[in-house]
Amino acid sequence: MPVKRLINYPIILRVLSFLLLVVSAFMLSGILFAWYFREPLWPLLISFLITFTTGGLSWLFLGKRNTKGIGKREGYLIVALSWVVVSLFGSLPYILSNSIPSFTNAFFETMSGFTTTGASILTDIEAVPKSILYWRALTHWLGGMGIIVLTVAILPFLGIGGMQLLIAEMPGITPDKLHPRIMATAKRLWGIYVLFTLLETLILWIGEMNFFDAICHAFATMATGGFSTKNDSIAGFAPFTQYVIIFFMILAGTNFTLHYLALHRKFDKLWSNQEFKVYLGIIVIISILTTIGILLFRFENSLESAFRNSLFTVVSILTTTGFVMTDYMLWPTSVWIMIFTLMFIGGSAGSTGGGIKIARHLLLVKNSWVELKRAIHPQAVIPVKFNGKSVSQQIIFNVMAFFLLYIMIFITGVVVMAFIGLDFQTSIGAVAATLGNIGPGIGGVGPVENYAFFTPFAKWFLSFLMLLGRLELFTVLIVISPAFWRS
Amino acid sequence: MPVKRLINYPIILRVLSFLLLVVSAFMLSGILFAWYFREPLWPLLISFLITFTTGGLSWLFLGKRNTKGIGKREGYLIVALSWVVVSLFGSLPYILSNSIPSFTNAFFETMSGFTTTGASILTDIEAVPKSILYWRALTHWLGGMGIIVLTVAILPFLGIGGMQLLIAEMPGITPDKLHPRIMATAKRLWGIYVLFTLLETLILWIGEMNFFDAICHAFATMATGGFSTKNDSIAGFAPFTQYVIIFFMILAGTNFTLHYLALHRKFDKLWSNQEFKVYLGIIVIISILTTIGILLFRFENSLESAFRNSLFTVVSILTTTGFVMTDYMLWPTSVWIMIFTLMFIGGSAGSTGGGIKIARHLLLVKNSWVELKRAIHPQAVIPVKFNGKSVSQQIIFNVMAFFLLYIMIFITGVVVMAFIGLDFQTSIGAVAATLGNIGPGIGGVGPVENYAFFTPFAKWFLSFLMLLGRLELFTVLIVISPAFWRS
Repeated sequence: MPVKRLINYPIILRVLSFLLLVVSAFMLSGILFAWYFREPLWPLLISFLITFTTGGLSWLFLGKRNTKGIGKREGYLIVALSWVVVSLFGSLPYILSNSIPSFTNAFFETMSGFTTTGASILTDIEAVPKSILYWRALTHWLGGMGIIVLTVAILPFLGIGGMQLLIAEMPGITPDKLHPRIMATAKRLWGIYVLFTLLETLILWIGEMNFFDAICHAFATMATGGFSTKNDSIAGFAPFTQYVIIFFMILAGTNFTLHYLALHRKFDKLWSNQEFKVYLGIIVIISILTTIGILLFRFENSLESAFRNSLFTVVSILTTTGFVMTDYMLWPTSVWIMIFTLMFIGGSAGSTGGGIKIARHLLLVKNSWVELKRAIHPQAVIPVKFNGKSVSQQIIFNVMAFFLLYIMIFITGVVVMAFIGLDFQTSIGAVAATLGNIGPGIGGVGPVENYAFFTPFAKWFLSFLMLLGRLELFTVLIVISPAFWRS
Repeated sequence: MPVKRLINYPIILRVLSFLLLVVSAFMLSGILFAWYFREPLWPLLISFLITFTTGGLSWLFLGKRNTKGIGKREGYLIVALSWVVVSLFGSLPYILSNSIPSFTNAFFETMSGFTTTGASILTDIEAVPKSILYWRALTHWLGGMGIIVLTVAILPFLGIGGMQLLIAEMPGITPDKLHPRIMATAKRLWGIYVLFTLLETLILWIGEMNFFDAICHAFATMATGGFSTKNDSIAGFAPFTQYVIIFFMILAGTNFTLHYLALHRKFDKLWSNQEFKVYLGIIVIISILTTIGILLFRFENSLESAFRNSLFTVVSILTTTGFVMTDYMLWPTSVWIMIFTLMFIGGSAGSTGGGIKIARHLLLVKNSWVELKRAIHPQAVIPVKFNGKSVSQQIIFNVMAFFLLYIMIFITGVVVMAFIGLDFQTSIGAVAATLGNIGPGIGGVGPVENYAFFTPFAKWFLSFLMLLGRLELFTVLIVISPAFWRS
């Protein structure tokens, strides 16, 4: 039996307090927009004061610096609680500005922001003050930053869901210790994240967008979030803007360590990465099929428009961004079912994208193939290879368990939704879109719909699914399992 | 590298010829009904002659007795080809009697029979000659016999999908050799199968049914098939008949080795069997929930009728029989979605039921639970236990691979169906109902619909899914994989 050890709560509180201080500083930045657009300053100011004071007091009096006491159990708790705590405080601006008076709705919107889901309960986005919409986009961007440090530094240390695979790609990193070097790597990847965000803001601003729309959309793109400042999302913008957003969505859905390697001119690593090739392959093939589909059924007349709509939708759903350019539910069933299946693929591992992820699917397909070979030649030792290296059975086991849990949670979620009284498509759509951190689903939560009509219970349940999906399932499940608390 | 060895085709041909001879003999038995009901004798007679002659000539001239040459590869081919070959010859009575003139339709109906699926392309069942309906029910019964010998004797030998688990339950059997004792066990289980069939025929006959209806329904029940002789399936019969069929469906969906143990008064083995307890638990809980659901929404007025409809539907879908008593698609969405999820559970391992099977689900849930525990205590060795015994990692790996393949084939199937032009519910329903060997699905293939309207391509595709599901996926996939043929 393992040695009974108390959980080091002071260290957990210290990390959470630090997060609150960071979030409060970003909150404050929204006051600039409030001042510029002549909106009341006090909602963001009071939100900042509450968050800053809570974080500061907790940091000073409750938290204790004791890095020796940070183990796996503290790690799980910190990860699971981070998103909940920042979502609680992050919903203050919505409530105080009266943009979203109900706490349930405000929490849903904030959790949707920080998990980079992009599912919204707002029925008239343009009626919300611009400074609040800036905060809404900022929750995405901060969530995306969190995900980068999570996948690169924390999850491999906790040994969750085969993420070791990803980290092994980065030069000079071993996943066994939470080494200071890992934090340095996270900072480098943050640098790329900030760089791409600035670049996108600039290009969108040079185009037709004003600075406010440009920065909000850049935040939502790079985090693969999907919150827009417009009621019709990206549909009303010019083709130039749409192509720019497509390009940056593709970048956001790519493993960020590949960007790092590309910036260091290691292009051979880029082109030998199997996940990256499959990612681009899926985008190209499904976009072409979709283009043919909607041209054949005469849903579009121009080839360019059909291609742009197809490419935008495929990239937006596959990367789990969830920006909307067209109502794909009006497309032929065969086409939108294909779009729907993309919801179960997800972005690349190590990107800000959610879902099951392409690397896991690749491993599962390769392993099934190898299992068939093993059945034919029981004596032969046939390893599963990924990017030219053998993958351990432990990682494959981990990835399989992840996939199984994902499907089981999905089915359970659909049954719960149906019991609330939702129809078949809406139940399936809402669970797929929140668990996969996508945003728009199918049926009653299709691309031109929103989540406003759900009951409070459904909103809390879907918020939980967003958290579960974003934190790669295991983290949350471990923390809520009785076995975690027993010993 | 394994030694290159030619496949022993003569032994494969010998087994297939033997199967054709057995099937032809059963075909002949239908002539009694043709004679009794004054229907033309020649369709069954000519079908018999063609099947018997082909089987006999092939047995004499092509097959060679050489038991030493029967290895794994021959085993896979025999299993995969058996169902195809008997379905090809088994469609003769439909074609020759002009009941189903199209070869595609006749093959679909026969494959649906032998795989104990029960999906039908007949729009007016009662217009078909009774001797042909007898043959239709008989394909179920023979398919069920095949499944018993497959799960008890052949699959454990081929090492497929964790079926070793089941065989280990039977006293005195080791799964490493195709020992003569295993054939003796199969014969004992066949004895139980025949006994239960006779018993059900007798009880149904004592009730309101005539002998013809009684034996046809007994065939379809014990094989968990679902073909009825009536257009409205079981709806038109009295409650007594419906309860009798419920009882025998429950028996047919139970592990047959448990029946064997129960008949030898080893009741302790019965009650300590975890799969059996979960199986009964699911039936009780879902039936009660369904009863409450349809009473609350006033779809039924009498408690007894609501309970009988619920119990019948739950047992029929869970055991993958597919008899219909009521149109569950008219029930509230929350209720029929619950019924729909049963399609992904399936019967017990070692029963004639299809689908993923309860034992596999149990192992997966137990393993996920243990994985969470392992994440918390990485040093501790925590085994997965089933019926009190530790389960090897190899079996869990096998079961996981099965589940993954099932889900992947399901999703691929839905996309293919959607491309043919079917709507979302029908695509999902048709694939779930054929891959799981159930029969009725949801949407356009709901309980009061049939498969007549599908395109020929769709019918061949769905026939393939029935075969894939019935032979536990791996067998068919191995045989169609290039790696099988390469070495």
